[in-house]
Amino acid sequence: MTSTQESAEDRHLPYDVFAKACPSRGTLEHVTGRWGGLTLGALSEGSLRFNELRRRVDGVSEKMLSQTLHALERDGLVLREAQPTNPPRVDYELTPLGHEVAQRLLALIRVLEGGMDDVLAARERYDETRGAR
Amino acid sequence: MTSTQESAEDRHLPYDVFAKACPSRGTLEHVTGRWGGLTLGALSEGSLRFNELRRRVDGVSEKMLSQTLHALERDGLVLREAQPTNPPRVDYELTPLGHEVAQRLLALIRVLEGGMDDVLAARERYDETRGAR
Repeated sequence: MTSTQESAEDRHLPYDVFAKACPSRGTLEHVTGRWGGLTLGALSEGSLRFNELRRRVDGVSEKMLSQTLHALERDGLVLREAQPTNPPRVDYELTPLGHEVAQRLLALIRVLEGGMDDVLAARERYDETRGAR
Repeated sequence: MTSTQESAEDRHLPYDVFAKACPSRGTLEHVTGRWGGLTLGALSEGSLRFNELRRRVDGVSEKMLSQTLHALERDGLVLREAQPTNPPRVDYELTPLGHEVAQRLLALIRVLEGGMDDVLAARERYDETRGAR
């Protein structure tokens, strides 16, 4: 566990989202944050322009979408491509790693959407029990 | 879209996290929120007591873990079991749906942890480009 060859050790140190200092935790938050997951999910269908993306991710503000895209771009999950057109046009698309992440997110979303009848029934039971206390 | 048979209609309505009014969006946020994902991930290894869970989810406060567990319990993803022991003991474990969700989350976490070298390299490139402007 301890070594004087720190740089080599670090390189082989596994990332662990459960450790609060691990940088993977920040990336998990960008990916699964309020808008990050929906943005990646929307882009998994193909590249989109800012306004197309904004319509697809129902309810996101311009500012939040812009922040979300910057964080995902910085993490290397989304590519921003300014097209040399007039007027200028900016397309957003997933990188290969972004695609991998988006596929896992969509699998999670499908499980959740498929389980929502159970979720809503559980909420009703929970609220009834709490109300009866 | 409109119907007088609301309950039957509702039952067959597909859930869609991309629609802001869909209840599945709230559940997605509980599952992928700052602490929800880590809590589900930790419980995928087996049932845990509150303090064990708190140690595993490094950095979570007592209050936040408690709120997180309530939301997951209400959504039917986590079971809270008060053991009839003295002193009383409370165990938390995943429901079958919670397990399904946790498996998908862990698959996502593994992709992220595996891609972190690329993520960190992308961040460096991004920050350099931004700094040079």
